[in-house]
Amino acid sequence: MTDSSVPATALEVRLASRPAGWPTTDNFEIAEAPVPEPGPGQILVRNKAMSVDPYMRGRMSAAKSYVAPFEIGKPLDGGAVGEVVSSNSDDFSTGQQVLHALGWREYAAVDASQATTVADDLPSSAFLGVLGMPGMTAYVGLMDKARFQQGDTVFVSGAAGAVGSLVGQLAKLNGAERVIGSAGSAEKVRLLTERFGFDAAFNYKDAPVGEQLREAAPNGIDVYFDNVGGDHLEAAIGTMNDFGRIAACGAISQYNATEAQPGPRNMFQFVTKRLSMQGFIVNDNGHLKREFFEHVAPLVREGRLIHEETFVDGLRNAPEAFLGVLRGDNTGKMIVNV
Amino acid sequence: MTDSSVPATALEVRLASRPAGWPTTDNFEIAEAPVPEPGPGQILVRNKAMSVDPYMRGRMSAAKSYVAPFEIGKPLDGGAVGEVVSSNSDDFSTGQQVLHALGWREYAAVDASQATTVADDLPSSAFLGVLGMPGMTAYVGLMDKARFQQGDTVFVSGAAGAVGSLVGQLAKLNGAERVIGSAGSAEKVRLLTERFGFDAAFNYKDAPVGEQLREAAPNGIDVYFDNVGGDHLEAAIGTMNDFGRIAACGAISQYNATEAQPGPRNMFQFVTKRLSMQGFIVNDNGHLKREFFEHVAPLVREGRLIHEETFVDGLRNAPEAFLGVLRGDNTGKMIVNV
Repeated sequence: MTDSSVPATALEVRLASRPAGWPTTDNFEIAEAPVPEPGPGQILVRNKAMSVDPYMRGRMSAAKSYVAPFEIGKPLDGGAVGEVVSSNSDDFSTGQQVLHALGWREYAAVDASQATTVADDLPSSAFLGVLGMPGMTAYVGLMDKARFQQGDTVFVSGAAGAVGSLVGQLAKLNGAERVIGSAGSAEKVRLLTERFGFDAAFNYKDAPVGEQLREAAPNGIDVYFDNVGGDHLEAAIGTMNDFGRIAACGAISQYNATEAQPGPRNMFQFVTKRLSMQGFIVNDNGHLKREFFEHVAPLVREGRLIHEETFVDGLRNAPEAFLGVLRGDNTGKMIVNV
Repeated sequence: MTDSSVPATALEVRLASRPAGWPTTDNFEIAEAPVPEPGPGQILVRNKAMSVDPYMRGRMSAAKSYVAPFEIGKPLDGGAVGEVVSSNSDDFSTGQQVLHALGWREYAAVDASQATTVADDLPSSAFLGVLGMPGMTAYVGLMDKARFQQGDTVFVSGAAGAVGSLVGQLAKLNGAERVIGSAGSAEKVRLLTERFGFDAAFNYKDAPVGEQLREAAPNGIDVYFDNVGGDHLEAAIGTMNDFGRIAACGAISQYNATEAQPGPRNMFQFVTKRLSMQGFIVNDNGHLKREFFEHVAPLVREGRLIHEETFVDGLRNAPEAFLGVLRGDNTGKMIVNV
């Protein structure tokens, strides 16, 4: 049964060309395409909200990485929430809200196995943020990869972003001694301490990261959640206490660099201080999904976990919204209302 | 009861001054000092063999680290094996062979709690090498920190040294797919493949480490045991397979550097390849001592683990022997016959 209001054609955003360095809107093409017919076992979803995330920059390059690159001339993809408007699957019926991976388009034909219904007592955008990939990333990185323990002092870089703001709050809610964040504007730094409850925060553009971190963490740090790489990573290694742990989640400082950036010059401290570092990608950690949801959903329902969202309206503005994430324009999760 | 042949005075090696950069024999003083009287609960040991190790370079500097610095004007210390010549402890009697931590002197008054008797069916030097700290370091780093698994391809830097040569052999004996080592001379490279059973080896002075490693490991590496740091670490990160693991044991390339060396420029691969790195110091791992001994002692008794030793005779030559270790003159474990 198909919703009679489904049009014949709809918009999608395609990769027009691969960027060298910083991408621009010229790397994207907004195209009108036939709305797909859902095949056997598929559902047709009218997207309401979609996610734009820093990791998508990597997929714009041709290099093989942990997610397949976007293809030139094809629509991009990524997390989205929408309404089922037609179903060839016994598991879904029209009108249901589903989370799936075919964003960057107004209508998507999705394999039923790739869609999940989302609870309707929570805003659908939450499933792209605090209860979606960014929330899961924060939880897995802090709890599993950095093996957070009560009493730890935690440093988070890119702390005003979708992931970082949740890492800091989860640490505080679980008994961190002190939580420190870095961000790239005075406004974000203010938000970190006043709204997200960080104990200290600094603007990494104001002075060398190492200096500011040592001042903010006079007793050193036990956990570093790395979203930035580069000088932040070197500063964190230098400030770590013995047996400190690093969760390596991203390196936004490197994504648009056209040549290799200097690496941390203090790697020998891994030995002297017995540090550990674990790189991770959230998709590998499906076995923690239930634990994550059971831990975080109640905090969201009770209003104890603040999740900022920055909304941009209209699929046509999705490329600009994505570029904004790379520049750091957003606070919390950037969502495009399709 | 004291052995009547104990002299009134004996030699010890003291720290004369702290080096800046490479140490020289001028940083050491050979002194004649009264042989100590063992106090209550102590034993007097006539040292027969002592260990000189790269980590001692760190202790020559004043900087606080994981082991206390040597003190100027005082004798150095370190692993040694000797014969009990006088005992004020019920646990030891004269004539026993013991392992203890007061090397760099001919006679040592050792607390009974700090001495261990060693099996007399194995050469006493083995307890400074394959069954001592270097062996334990190799075992702990490979098995526990790098979580070695059958079928792994393993790369070891500084592979002809006391620790490295054991890492490679333990990996092979436990089912490594391929073991690759780097060393600093053609002679050592030859030893690695011909004597220690490495599958491939290269001289890091011949060409960039990254190039040589990629050639030696066409299918990438799963484990890197790092004794060297610097360009070796960057090359290993670049060659790692997904979910690769690094045990950070040392960074001999950095010990005598007077300024910070460039760091690995490819740290972002920790995320994309989900790498992990664990720094460690063997002394933290006493809980693995029994497991280590049960695993390694039979291999030594059966002659299945080749442990090279380079012997230098005479305590007066200990400083030069130590400098030789830093330069890489030794193959396998460097032992000073006191």
